[in-house]
Amino acid sequence: MSLTLYTSARAAAPYRVRIALNLKGIEYMPVPVDLAGSEQHKAPYRALNAQKLIPTLEGAGDPLTQSLAILEWLEETHPQPSLLPTDPRDRATVRSMAGIVACDIHPLNNLRVIRALEAMNVSPDARLTWAKRWINDGFTALEPMVAKHGRGWAFGDQPTFADCCLIPQVANSARFQVDLAPYPAITAVWEASKAHPAFHAAAYEQQPDFKPA
Amino acid sequence: MSLTLYTSARAAAPYRVRIALNLKGIEYMPVPVDLAGSEQHKAPYRALNAQKLIPTLEGAGDPLTQSLAILEWLEETHPQPSLLPTDPRDRATVRSMAGIVACDIHPLNNLRVIRALEAMNVSPDARLTWAKRWINDGFTALEPMVAKHGRGWAFGDQPTFADCCLIPQVANSARFQVDLAPYPAITAVWEASKAHPAFHAAAYEQQPDFKPA
Repeated sequence: MSLTLYTSARAAAPYRVRIALNLKGIEYMPVPVDLAGSEQHKAPYRALNAQKLIPTLEGAGDPLTQSLAILEWLEETHPQPSLLPTDPRDRATVRSMAGIVACDIHPLNNLRVIRALEAMNVSPDARLTWAKRWINDGFTALEPMVAKHGRGWAFGDQPTFADCCLIPQVANSARFQVDLAPYPAITAVWEASKAHPAFHAAAYEQQPDFKPA
Repeated sequence: MSLTLYTSARAAAPYRVRIALNLKGIEYMPVPVDLAGSEQHKAPYRALNAQKLIPTLEGAGDPLTQSLAILEWLEETHPQPSLLPTDPRDRATVRSMAGIVACDIHPLNNLRVIRALEAMNVSPDARLTWAKRWINDGFTALEPMVAKHGRGWAFGDQPTFADCCLIPQVANSARFQVDLAPYPAITAVWEASKAHPAFHAAAYEQQPDFKPA
């Protein structure tokens, strides 16, 4: 099975999937989607993903969409190394951490939302305050969870779905000038991730379509 | 194991969990959280859920948060009846449908976000347009998926996570005056759900804290 990932260098959701693919050692072909040029709204891409969002993973029948669904599919079809602990309660904690990022931080700050605020004449300052608020709300909830459960990573001593979601969100937070000082446990995981080849290869600046700001 | 669900009659995320608990025949004690009275921001509830969001499920060690994580935990600990198909590709489709609602529709329209728009002086009309836009974007992507995969429910002939997420979102969409006419497949599932005891018992108006608008 040969996999193609529709992705974009600076987008957080496909970054989650890149990390998981790399952690599991699954080869894939990255196809950059030009979000700034609205390629996601045009017919060829819309045929793959009716939401006009990334990521889409192709090569397993119908195109797969939604990053959390793709992470679960990768875990079920390529179980080793596992990105979830074995105990159901622990798995729930990891999935809760992933959900805090994927459901309650990132959807409020992605490109389509920032553009929608702009279209409502919300000022640049107010948009920045908006983005920071949701990131800080989410990180405030995540910080004690990471401090309690993490032993090098967000949960335990191996990367999990929680890290696949958290690390792109930390990378993203720099864009919104979020101060990480109140989040030492999250910051420690971020620092650890930089030295891990799977995370390094998935990072913004390693992507074929990366352009410096 | 005795379970307590922190919930609120008109909130969509705990409604997902109520449906799943009912489908699996798991008894639980509902504890209403007074969102309008900001009970979620006060110390007793914040100790349970640092995000100050609902649902929280108590009774399995540390409180469980995030509705998708709770659905997965229920599936792993109470496998029958299953709320996921067996094939990994099909499971990914169901989880993608759930993710469209839980990651890309609902987070943009919940109480904290509508209040944040209000605080930025976004007019009631513009807030309504905002809410309708994300619901219509999501339903536009979901409609062909339900039409293709549904045989009475959102995916196949038995309720899944997709229905647990979709039905509360349809209920919620009435509040934002969303026209369901473009979504006949979604509407058919909504109609079917009204006749199902697990969905009926989970509905807004069946909750102990329900108040007519």
